[in-house]
Amino acid sequence: MSLAFAEAESAGRRGEVPIGCVIVDQSGTIMARAGNRTLELKDPTAHAELLAIRDAAAKLGSERLVGLDIYVTLEPCAMCAAAISFARLRRLYFAAGDEKMGGVEHGPRFFNQETCHHSPEVYGGLSEARGQTLLKDFFRTRRD
Amino acid sequence: MSLAFAEAESAGRRGEVPIGCVIVDQSGTIMARAGNRTLELKDPTAHAELLAIRDAAAKLGSERLVGLDIYVTLEPCAMCAAAISFARLRRLYFAAGDEKMGGVEHGPRFFNQETCHHSPEVYGGLSEARGQTLLKDFFRTRRD
Repeated sequence: MSLAFAEAESAGRRGEVPIGCVIVDQSGTIMARAGNRTLELKDPTAHAELLAIRDAAAKLGSERLVGLDIYVTLEPCAMCAAAISFARLRRLYFAAGDEKMGGVEHGPRFFNQETCHHSPEVYGGLSEARGQTLLKDFFRTRRD
Repeated sequence: MSLAFAEAESAGRRGEVPIGCVIVDQSGTIMARAGNRTLELKDPTAHAELLAIRDAAAKLGSERLVGLDIYVTLEPCAMCAAAISFARLRRLYFAAGDEKMGGVEHGPRFFNQETCHHSPEVYGGLSEARGQTLLKDFFRTRRD
């Protein structure tokens, strides 16, 4: 998760919403790491999770990331939760919940829907304070 | 919608699930068109809608597609519905509902969630029979 936070902080320094993630295989090898790049790439889908999933899938040469785990600094939104499901990721770890945009424990609760055909094991709230503080500091700075 | 169906049929000929979409501006100019390419690109996020949204955003040089409309042959899944929201698309037209994977009128009903901060106008079921038949024929052929 510390690498995911490093990606989040790096995204924040680029002016992006500071969210980062890392995808690892079962031996702990890093398959992909990314931070948000929606502004830089002019791409509304360029959330950290989607960028990392696409990168890992390209590296593996498969649209399915069976057995791999994803670490994210914030609860994924519905778009990213669905992508995690489609990619067949094994486990989702996230640092802080997201009442405003979250799609796992809030709003659509995608993995609990009958239209969700693969759910990862979910481990949320692992670094609630750090995840929340990073975002709050970012938005406070932007308001100043 | 006929162009979206052409994209869907083209995707089917490539062995992909036959779903297609088109994004147009208010004058009717086509900004992007795409069919599913998840297998070809080895990318679980390469649904028709996401490819078209990314293409249109790249062309416009903006991560927001304000005022643009999207036509899809099938009800978007939760991933694509959320991307449509993030892209600020004005209207969503889709041909057929999707009980199994749909995220607009089924399952997560993303646009009805409090965590959804922009909803397009939605016009569904425009060519229910054609949209359903295309998919059923595709899956029947694969089972044979």
